Amino acid sequence: MEIKVLTIKEDILGANETKARENQDRLDKHGILTINIMSSPGAGKTSLILQTINRLKPETRVAVIEGDVASQVDAEKVHQQGVPIIQINIPGGCHLDANMIENALNNLPLEELDLLLIENVGNLICPAEFDLGEHKRVILASTPEGDDKPYKYPLMFTEADVVLVNKLDLMPHLDFQINHFCEGVTGLNPAVKIFPVSCKTGEGLEQWFSWLLDQIKEKKA
Amino acid sequence: MEIKVLTIKEDILGANETKARENQDRLDKHGILTINIMSSPGAGKTSLILQTINRLKPETRVAVIEGDVASQVDAEKVHQQGVPIIQINIPGGCHLDANMIENALNNLPLEELDLLLIENVGNLICPAEFDLGEHKRVILASTPEGDDKPYKYPLMFTEADVVLVNKLDLMPHLDFQINHFCEGVTGLNPAVKIFPVSCKTGEGLEQWFSWLLDQIKEKKA
Repeated sequence: MEIKVLTIKEDILGANETKARENQDRLDKHGILTINIMSSPGAGKTSLILQTINRLKPETRVAVIEGDVASQVDAEKVHQQGVPIIQINIPGGCHLDANMIENALNNLPLEELDLLLIENVGNLICPAEFDLGEHKRVILASTPEGDDKPYKYPLMFTEADVVLVNKLDLMPHLDFQINHFCEGVTGLNPAVKIFPVSCKTGEGLEQWFSWLLDQIKEKKA
Repeated sequence: MEIKVLTIKEDILGANETKARENQDRLDKHGILTINIMSSPGAGKTSLILQTINRLKPETRVAVIEGDVASQVDAEKVHQQGVPIIQINIPGGCHLDANMIENALNNLPLEELDLLLIENVGNLICPAEFDLGEHKRVILASTPEGDDKPYKYPLMFTEADVVLVNKLDLMPHLDFQINHFCEGVTGLNPAVKIFPVSCKTGEGLEQWFSWLLDQIKEKKA
């Protein structure tokens, strides 16, 4: 039975890959930089998105896709910022896939966007296996989760373009060794950019905004 | 293709259920209370296990099964406590299943144990779907993850016997509303026990130890 499962899973991943490429072509045609944001539950993805919208709009036209097992808690916070938002609820699911993103794109004003932020389901494992058609993958780690996460969840960190280390403001109360964390990440992925930040105090976020604005410019060029 | 996947998945869950019952029968025959501990990455499962071993041994004979995607970081910490330990690594996997536990049981001295602690893979979604044969399910939430977790990951909390709220020591630095969290949990699961604790300072752990010792006594009776 286990071999059957693997076969089916390969089919799913293959079909997902095809759909992801279609999504990316469509986003490219509209010049929309698309970022897939992944993390553990409660690492601060929604706070990062709210900070990013606040800093970048109105010059940058942003939309958001929110992936959750249940609830619209995060989508409601983002909705208050007045940007287009699509909530995807996946009861029993543990990740977004390219089909879900296609459905969301059908419901977004693509001709009026520069940046699409996708908040994936809070999960450090399964989302890493499913391309959505994004241009960049961002992992949001957080200091209270501990500095051993890249060693314990390697795939997620191997495939990241940027790793943000959030909740810097809690560092004085934790045993988090940032050097040990960064060595774990760069050991897997030497080209990755690592930005230590606090989405609560704003510390360090300017380097994230600056990287993001560069990517948007490049996509429009 | 999606319907095929669901069919296969039901078969997996059905086969897992059968194997889980076999595991439980075997554990019952030896009078070993078995606890499945689940949480997000970095909520403090290993710290809880270390504190529990320290408090309960040598009167209680404890063994541990460690589930991880990669690494033996946690198993090495537990190994230093001198208790029997089995590490299960699941590259590409996101949860333990009953077959893996059967293999681990084959390698543990069952006639010499009172308590088996299973540390599941750090993931608030997938592990909830797979019975291992455990007698009780424990969810370890942590304050920096935020008080909205029961609303966003309902299945995990619906099926818990105990919810521990860890990292109480960080509360002064967070916006965590414990009433909002507890209302979310009891709304899904009125019979659940909720113990606020700090595995770092030891605060609140006595009620957890006391609950656990009662369960062990009951299993032996």
